[in-house]
Amino acid sequence: MLSSSSAQIRTLHSSISHSLSPKIRSYLSKNSTLRARISSCGFPPTSIRSISSATTTIMASAEEARVPPAIPPPTPPVTKFKIALCQLAVTTDKEKNIAHARHIIEGAAAKGAKLILLPEIWNSPYSNDSFPVYAEDIDAGGDASPSTAMLSELSRSLKITIVGGSIPERSGDRLYNTCCVFDTDGTLKAKHRKIHLFDIDIPGKMTFKESKTLTAGETPTIVDTDVGRIGIGICYDIRFQELAAIYAARGAHLICYPGAFNMTTGPLHWELLQRARAADCQLYVATCSPARDTGSSYVAWGHSTLVGPFGEVLATTEHDEAIVISEIDYSLIEQRRTYLPFQTQRRGDLYQLVDVQRLGSTKTG
Amino acid sequence: MLSSSSAQIRTLHSSISHSLSPKIRSYLSKNSTLRARISSCGFPPTSIRSISSATTTIMASAEEARVPPAIPPPTPPVTKFKIALCQLAVTTDKEKNIAHARHIIEGAAAKGAKLILLPEIWNSPYSNDSFPVYAEDIDAGGDASPSTAMLSELSRSLKITIVGGSIPERSGDRLYNTCCVFDTDGTLKAKHRKIHLFDIDIPGKMTFKESKTLTAGETPTIVDTDVGRIGIGICYDIRFQELAAIYAARGAHLICYPGAFNMTTGPLHWELLQRARAADCQLYVATCSPARDTGSSYVAWGHSTLVGPFGEVLATTEHDEAIVISEIDYSLIEQRRTYLPFQTQRRGDLYQLVDVQRLGSTKTG
Repeated sequence: MLSSSSAQIRTLHSSISHSLSPKIRSYLSKNSTLRARISSCGFPPTSIRSISSATTTIMASAEEARVPPAIPPPTPPVTKFKIALCQLAVTTDKEKNIAHARHIIEGAAAKGAKLILLPEIWNSPYSNDSFPVYAEDIDAGGDASPSTAMLSELSRSLKITIVGGSIPERSGDRLYNTCCVFDTDGTLKAKHRKIHLFDIDIPGKMTFKESKTLTAGETPTIVDTDVGRIGIGICYDIRFQELAAIYAARGAHLICYPGAFNMTTGPLHWELLQRARAADCQLYVATCSPARDTGSSYVAWGHSTLVGPFGEVLATTEHDEAIVISEIDYSLIEQRRTYLPFQTQRRGDLYQLVDVQRLGSTKTG
Repeated sequence: MLSSSSAQIRTLHSSISHSLSPKIRSYLSKNSTLRARISSCGFPPTSIRSISSATTTIMASAEEARVPPAIPPPTPPVTKFKIALCQLAVTTDKEKNIAHARHIIEGAAAKGAKLILLPEIWNSPYSNDSFPVYAEDIDAGGDASPSTAMLSELSRSLKITIVGGSIPERSGDRLYNTCCVFDTDGTLKAKHRKIHLFDIDIPGKMTFKESKTLTAGETPTIVDTDVGRIGIGICYDIRFQELAAIYAARGAHLICYPGAFNMTTGPLHWELLQRARAADCQLYVATCSPARDTGSSYVAWGHSTLVGPFGEVLATTEHDEAIVISEIDYSLIEQRRTYLPFQTQRRGDLYQLVDVQRLGSTKTG
């Protein structure tokens, strides 16, 4: 069963092309070096191919490690700009939370931030009891969603891009944990519903089941803004490296993760995961947590952070309310990828990450 | 092109099943909830499905995130045992290197280690000039490979498992960077040839092109030993998260990475990558570097480390020669996976990691 069983591997060459998708087969038909490599799967004729031809073959196969093949990041509208991570204190008073967020966003914009990131669940306490009570109908808008109405108004009046953390969203009879992205003209450009619900059970430390009240989102979310191509994940979404990898393959410059890690998972994994996603995907990662409130039922870790494309922490904070302002320079993405050229080094003959929705979209687009 | 283009997504349901591999299609035909989910791709009928049915669907789709589906780790022959990471000083004298490694391995075994891990390229200086000179014909064995003959002899006489770091291997007219795994009876159980060659160029800091002299390996390597199921990667292999993920999906308890990071990439990424692979895959990761020799052309970072399945550093060292001995407890793997149940939370409807060789092997085996 394992690949070390050479007898089984030897049978691969006759069957493997049939086990791949039509999309992959169509690449193969256009790529004779890759075809040769796969058909000789694991057993290259030692005396035929020179080292240089083997290298060429590997580079050709690298593209196959992402299905569909990765798209390089587009030229962004702006290369350097300031981002603000608004680590808000959250109360049980929704109106107060909205007014406070407005005040903090205005302050961040006054300091020159062109992109504002808010925390996960910033208009409500983070609890299954609160989600239904604080939820808003984002699609209905206006009075049905005062939180997003405020974000839309500010993004337009201040000419800033807002990745609006997340709020509980009501849609029909369902609730979601939802992040809204507003463009500089106030348009709701994208809405990300948390894909991976936070259901964990570390006995005596942290037990939470978002799935008691929430429904998981159905699609990854990546959006072109005035400050670059941004992929969105919410908190637990950051645990799934595949999501970050498919955003990178869709040409993201930056992944924003509003997130409220806690006093158990925060010290264990919060910085580790941000740095790993940034270093593996060679792009920027920004996170934003609520400030810590030790009186609440769920105590957030804080530590909102910006990480650069080498996995380096560029700016961070402790757990009190804070606005972290730092500069993003997208030119570093290409530089880091030239230094460590993973794009040409992946082994698509051995592993392939399929972006299921983009595969269908590309096929039919 | 991006998934946020709703018109394109809407066309998915008619085409997506045809764009998937026969293997995936066969899963779909057996799994009506998943089929329903994919055919409604991104646009669930809001009033039809209850939250509980959506949750069931997500759990069903989790299995699809690995193709073929992940295998749980087998019950290991031993649950708790000591591992030794032998951070050897390496000289230009091969005979001396072999004698020294023998001495250090004997010492580690005397301290109770049942698994010994050696560094990358421990019998030779790490340089393209040295690889052809120090290379051995491992398959020929005996006098043609004194380094592996010593490892085989010691593993048998001391009844230990040895993951023998790596040495330059000559095979026909090619050279590889190769790790040999010896069982407690002295058998060469597996041979891993570095899959991802170390070709990087960080101007003024670190430039190296292994591909000048070496050929890349053709297959992942995972092996059942007396101390569990072990996946092997060599140094730069650790940068590719997909390799770790396919080892995890093949049921690995532990991934061993002999590696010689350097004074640039070491402080940037050595610990980060080990911890990320362990935390994301929820298994043990052990690394072993040569000791630092500031007089050599390539200066190794050192810092051989054992990381547990929560990404926690269990034991490490600085850069001098050292034997790091620490206990591995495989029962923690299942515990950590119960706490954070990624296996049932991945979204196979959105992303799928294909293990190309295992897919072919499963199909034909």
